[in-house]
Amino acid sequence: MYLILLTTLTFSSIHSISAKVIIDGDVNNQCNLDKKLVEEIAAYKNVTQMIMNEIVSKGLGQEMYKEYTYFIDKFGARVSGTENLEKSIDYMINLTKSHGLIDVTTEEVDVPHWVRGHESLQMTKPREKNIALIGLGSSVSTPPEGLTAEVIVIKSFQDLDRTNDTETKGKIILFDAHYVTYGDTAIYRTQGASRAAKKGAVASLIRSITPFSIYSTHTGAQFYENDVTKIPTAAITLEDADLMRRLQERGEKIVVTLKMSSTFDMKKSRNTIIDLKGKENPDKVVIVSGHIDSWDVGQGAMDDGGGMMISWFAPVVLNRLNLKPKRTLRAILWTAEEPGLIGAAGYLQRHVSELSNINFIMESDEGTFMPRGLDVAGSNTTRCIIAEILKLFSPVDKMTNSGGPGSDITMFIRKGVPGASLLNDNARYFWYHHSDGDTLNVQNINDVIHCAAFWTAASYVIADISKDLPRD
Amino acid sequence: MYLILLTTLTFSSIHSISAKVIIDGDVNNQCNLDKKLVEEIAAYKNVTQMIMNEIVSKGLGQEMYKEYTYFIDKFGARVSGTENLEKSIDYMINLTKSHGLIDVTTEEVDVPHWVRGHESLQMTKPREKNIALIGLGSSVSTPPEGLTAEVIVIKSFQDLDRTNDTETKGKIILFDAHYVTYGDTAIYRTQGASRAAKKGAVASLIRSITPFSIYSTHTGAQFYENDVTKIPTAAITLEDADLMRRLQERGEKIVVTLKMSSTFDMKKSRNTIIDLKGKENPDKVVIVSGHIDSWDVGQGAMDDGGGMMISWFAPVVLNRLNLKPKRTLRAILWTAEEPGLIGAAGYLQRHVSELSNINFIMESDEGTFMPRGLDVAGSNTTRCIIAEILKLFSPVDKMTNSGGPGSDITMFIRKGVPGASLLNDNARYFWYHHSDGDTLNVQNINDVIHCAAFWTAASYVIADISKDLPRD
Repeated sequence: MYLILLTTLTFSSIHSISAKVIIDGDVNNQCNLDKKLVEEIAAYKNVTQMIMNEIVSKGLGQEMYKEYTYFIDKFGARVSGTENLEKSIDYMINLTKSHGLIDVTTEEVDVPHWVRGHESLQMTKPREKNIALIGLGSSVSTPPEGLTAEVIVIKSFQDLDRTNDTETKGKIILFDAHYVTYGDTAIYRTQGASRAAKKGAVASLIRSITPFSIYSTHTGAQFYENDVTKIPTAAITLEDADLMRRLQERGEKIVVTLKMSSTFDMKKSRNTIIDLKGKENPDKVVIVSGHIDSWDVGQGAMDDGGGMMISWFAPVVLNRLNLKPKRTLRAILWTAEEPGLIGAAGYLQRHVSELSNINFIMESDEGTFMPRGLDVAGSNTTRCIIAEILKLFSPVDKMTNSGGPGSDITMFIRKGVPGASLLNDNARYFWYHHSDGDTLNVQNINDVIHCAAFWTAASYVIADISKDLPRD
Repeated sequence: MYLILLTTLTFSSIHSISAKVIIDGDVNNQCNLDKKLVEEIAAYKNVTQMIMNEIVSKGLGQEMYKEYTYFIDKFGARVSGTENLEKSIDYMINLTKSHGLIDVTTEEVDVPHWVRGHESLQMTKPREKNIALIGLGSSVSTPPEGLTAEVIVIKSFQDLDRTNDTETKGKIILFDAHYVTYGDTAIYRTQGASRAAKKGAVASLIRSITPFSIYSTHTGAQFYENDVTKIPTAAITLEDADLMRRLQERGEKIVVTLKMSSTFDMKKSRNTIIDLKGKENPDKVVIVSGHIDSWDVGQGAMDDGGGMMISWFAPVVLNRLNLKPKRTLRAILWTAEEPGLIGAAGYLQRHVSELSNINFIMESDEGTFMPRGLDVAGSNTTRCIIAEILKLFSPVDKMTNSGGPGSDITMFIRKGVPGASLLNDNARYFWYHHSDGDTLNVQNINDVIHCAAFWTAASYVIADISKDLPRD
C-alpha cells in the first residue's frame, strides 16, 4: 500500500482528490473488532434508516435544498475578505438559530482580501487574437500599460530547468502542462510564477487545470516564494494553450500584451462553529465541515456550497429530530479556504491543545454528487470501525485510503486526528472547479439530498458509538 | 414514415440536424435495382479501398489534417463580409492550385457584414452580477448609455402569447426555452426578437441553444420580421437563464442594464468552385461542399472548417491519385452560410437553369467526428442506389432520411436535386456550436481523416457510376 507522505501535503495538494493514490480499503481482512462493538454498530440500522428516511423521503432534504439554492443565488461568489462573505456568514448563523439550534459561535481570523481588477490578454503576433484569461489568486498587477513580450511555451518544470536563462529572460512563460491529476498538475498553478521568475520571465501563464474545456478559464491560489520577483500570473484556456503550442511548433513567434490589475489587503473573517452538544461527553467532538468562501467566479455552488450546506445541516436536522449523540457533533463552516486554508489554520492554532478531544473530523469539499462512501485516514482500528459503520449505508460503503482526505482538515490529520472526506461521483468536478461553471447547474437535488442523508446519519453514528476512535 | 414538409425548412431550420425525424432508411426491402447496376457498384470495392487506404494509411489524410489545422490557426474565425474571410478564400484557391488542381473559379455574392462591438449585461436587482452575453447576428445596438429594464422570464412563444401586453411592454423578455432539438429550440433565436418586439419589449434575450454548458454563450443568426421594431437581442448562458428563472419564481424583481453596439453594411464575398472535370460527362456534376465562413467566436474549426476541408480535399486528392470520375466532381466552399445561406442562395440563383445537371449534391456541415453514413434525400431509386453504394463502406453504411439534409444544400433539395449530408458521431456538436468552444480542440485527427476518406471515396463512386441518380 502506497501513501503520499503527509509532509508532501502542502498547499499544492489542496483539493488533491485525484492526486492521491486511492486504494480501496479492504481493511476487514485485518480487523478484529470486538464482537460487542460490531453488534452495537449493527444496532444503529434503525436509527440511520430513520434519519435518512426523514431527509430523503419526508421533505427535510427538499427543505435543505431550497435553503441551499436560496443561499447560493442570494450571495453568489463569496470571496475571502469581502463584505459579501461576511453577510453570508451572518445569514448562516441566523438560519441556524431560526432552525432552533442556538449554540453558534464564530472565531475571528485574519484573511487575505485579493480583488481582481481589469484583465486582458491580446495576442499581436503571429496574428491579432483576444485570449481569454483569469488571474490567479494573489497575482500582482502588470504596469498600467501592460507587459508586451514574447511567449515561450514550456511543457513541464523539467523542461524549464533544461532551458537556458537567455531563452526565458524577459519572456512570458506559458506552462502547457496537460491535466493528469489535480495534484500533479496544480503545482504549475501554485508554483509556476515563482519558477518562471527565477528564470527571468516577466510573467507566467498556465494551461487551466482541467481535463475538459468549452473555452473555460480556471483560477486558484498561487504562492510567491520568498526572494523571487513577484510576476503577474494567470490561467488561459486549454484551447488557447494548444493554439500557442501549435504556433510555436510551427516556428511562429508569439507576442502578447498582458494587462492585469488587482488590489490586496488583509481583512477579518470568521469560522462559524455550530454545536449539537453531546449528551454524555460534550467535550468530545466529531466535526463535520465545509468551507463557506469561494473564488470570485461562478457561484461557489459546488466548491464548496454543497459541502458547507450538508455539514451545516447535520447538527441542525439531528436537533430537529431530537437526536442528540453522546459526543458533541460540531459543524464548522471554514472561512478563507481558497486563499490557502486560512480559516482552518486559525482554528488549529486556537485549539491545538484540544486536538485529543476531536474524535473524528470530516469534510466535504470534493463535490456533492451521488455519495459513495468515505476516504478515511486513521489507525487500523479506526478504519475498521468506520468500515463497520459504512456497512449500515450499503451501497454507500466504499472506503478509500488516500493518505490525506479533505482540504481544510488535512492539517488536523497531519497532527494525528483521524478523519474522512466524502467520496462521491465527482468525475466531472474539475470541469467546473474555480471557473464560472461552478453554479447550481452542476448540482442535482437528488444527489445533494442523498449526500446530506448519508453525511448526517454517518456522523451521528460516529458521534454516538460507545468507543472513541483510537489513534496510533 | 414522417417527413417534415420541405416548405417548413426556413432559416429557422438551418443546421436542423436534430430537428428532423431521423428514420433509418430501410429501403432495401423496396429496392429492385438492376442486377447489373448492383454488380457494377460492388465492383468499386477495390478502388474505394485503394482511395481510403491512400488517405487513412499512406499519409494523404495526415497531410490534409496538417493543411486543415494550419488554415484554422492562421485565419481563426472567418466572418461574412470581413477581409479575413476573403484572405482565407484566396488562401484556399492558392492551396488548391499548389496541389495541381487548377480548375478553380469564384462567383461573387453580396453578403452581410455585421460586426460586434461592445456588449455587456449587468444585473442590478435583486443583486449586482455581471451576466455573460453574446449578441445574436444582425442585432441592432442599444443606445450608448444602454437599456435599463426589468426582465421577464418566459418559457415559450405559447406562454408569451398568453401574457398581457401590459406585462411585457417596456420589459426585456428572456426566452428560457430548454434545448429539445436544435430545430425546435433555435426558433427562439431566429424569431425571438421579433416576437418580443410585437409585445412591446425593448430587448430580448435567449437561453443559449445548447444542451450543455460550462457558462458558455452561443450566438447565431436572427431575423427581424418586416414592420416590427428592431430591438437588441442576445444570448446568455444556461446558468444565468436558470438563475433568472429561479429569482422570478421566488418573486424577486430582476433589473438589468444591457449595452450592445454593432455595425452593419454589405460587402462582396465569393463562393469558391473547384472542379475535377468529368472524363465522360463533364457537364454533369456531383457536388461536395461545406462553408468557409464562420461566426466571430472560436475558430470555426468544427462549423464548418472540417466539412469545408474534407469537401475541398475530395477533388484535390482524386486528381493527385489520377482518378477522374465520369462526371465532374465539384467542390464548393460556400461563403456566408452563417448569416442565412447567402452564398448558396447566390449560387442557386445563378445556376437555376442548370439544376438538372446536378446529379447529386452533398454537404458536410454537422461535424466531422467519426463518420457513420449519409442522410439522403431523393427518389426511392436514388436512395436504393446510395444504399447500395454505402455497402462498400460498411460499417460506415447508415442511411437516414430526415427530409432535409444539409444547410446550404437544403434549397437545392427543395428544388428536387437529390442530395446527402454526412452522418457522424456528433452527439456533442451543440456543446460547441457558435461558441468560443468551436476550436481545433473538439476535432480528432483520426475522425477527420476517416471522414475525408469516406467522403472522397463515396463521392467518387456517385460521380462515376454509369447511371444518373433519378429524380421523382
